[in-house]
Amino acid sequence: MGLDKKISVAVIKRLPRYYRYLSDLLKLGITRISSKELSIRMGITASQIRQDLNCFGGFGQQGYGYNVEHLYNEIGNILGVNNKFSFIIIGAGNMGQALANYANFEKRGFIFTGIFDVNPDLIGKKINNREVMDMSNLDEFVKNNKIDIAMLCVPYDQTPIVADKVARLGIKGLWNFSPMDLKLPYDVVIENVHLSDSLMVLGYKLTQKLKNSQ
Amino acid sequence: MGLDKKISVAVIKRLPRYYRYLSDLLKLGITRISSKELSIRMGITASQIRQDLNCFGGFGQQGYGYNVEHLYNEIGNILGVNNKFSFIIIGAGNMGQALANYANFEKRGFIFTGIFDVNPDLIGKKINNREVMDMSNLDEFVKNNKIDIAMLCVPYDQTPIVADKVARLGIKGLWNFSPMDLKLPYDVVIENVHLSDSLMVLGYKLTQKLKNSQ
Repeated sequence: MGLDKKISVAVIKRLPRYYRYLSDLLKLGITRISSKELSIRMGITASQIRQDLNCFGGFGQQGYGYNVEHLYNEIGNILGVNNKFSFIIIGAGNMGQALANYANFEKRGFIFTGIFDVNPDLIGKKINNREVMDMSNLDEFVKNNKIDIAMLCVPYDQTPIVADKVARLGIKGLWNFSPMDLKLPYDVVIENVHLSDSLMVLGYKLTQKLKNSQ
Repeated sequence: MGLDKKISVAVIKRLPRYYRYLSDLLKLGITRISSKELSIRMGITASQIRQDLNCFGGFGQQGYGYNVEHLYNEIGNILGVNNKFSFIIIGAGNMGQALANYANFEKRGFIFTGIFDVNPDLIGKKINNREVMDMSNLDEFVKNNKIDIAMLCVPYDQTPIVADKVARLGIKGLWNFSPMDLKLPYDVVIENVHLSDSLMVLGYKLTQKLKNSQ
């Protein structure tokens, strides 16, 4: 509809995976690849790959395949990897600390800018070169720094309250680690990470495996 | 195809989400729900819900809707939440410690049984009532304890090596936190958690949002 072609969420969710595989191919010195070869590596059908990549213009050539570097750069552009996003972490427990130390984020353009907690034992502790700040300083910090994303690593019950606070402060992206599908009555983007869901799928597959091997 | 009806992976991946919503409904004292109401809460179409739930027998009744507790229990059975799975964590860094302390897993039947590292500063440290063990004791520990799942929280380069070792020891379920689609030449079940992928999708949506508000 119009100039800005809408790409479906399902396709968008697959793009980081293409991006990872193409990055690995580049590291291996592979400069071009057919949809069939990529299909075998990624374990998805070649027709799915062609369909996905067609969504944003399709960069393959008949009989040549895809130019790996070009495709890598194009997908990177679509995903906005050259954009920089500053993020803060709310909750400096183990998960918050794990995210603060996750080097891969910075490579993808996500810049660790601050970390907050209410626990006096954690406030002042240095995590990835930044001292944990008191939650009571959040308002001021967000007013003085452009913050794009808040990562929420707080207890379940606190999550909606903290999310509401963060959204009211004008932060537009929320990355939620509580096992709930967070919803807010504001114009914000929310991605929920459901670790237990992934583990339950693993449990299901294991159960099926045991059944079939009996 | 025979008695054991095959449920697609796409449906399986949605089941933990149904399970969470039904659990919330039960807590709210809601005993029955129509596919339409459930659809509004979950943000997916009613027809998708009916289709998903039909896959395993469909427990709804025309004009009555779904019996929440029955559906909750049935989905729980399919997911095998009454099965117990013992797990170990390899890598006692922040992510490993976060997983060891994640109370939600035990509620879902996943029992924290041991944690390992190679770092002398971490070995012996108590995490959720268990001392971090030396990786050199892994073989013996796995021989003496029934371990279903290994959670891998080790550096990127180490991941395939550790995964190979764990699979050779007979552990059938691997939960991988390295940003790679881990594959092994053994008969094991692997689930990969790609945190960066989720963050990149958030970044994409934020970029689109900013574009549209310009």
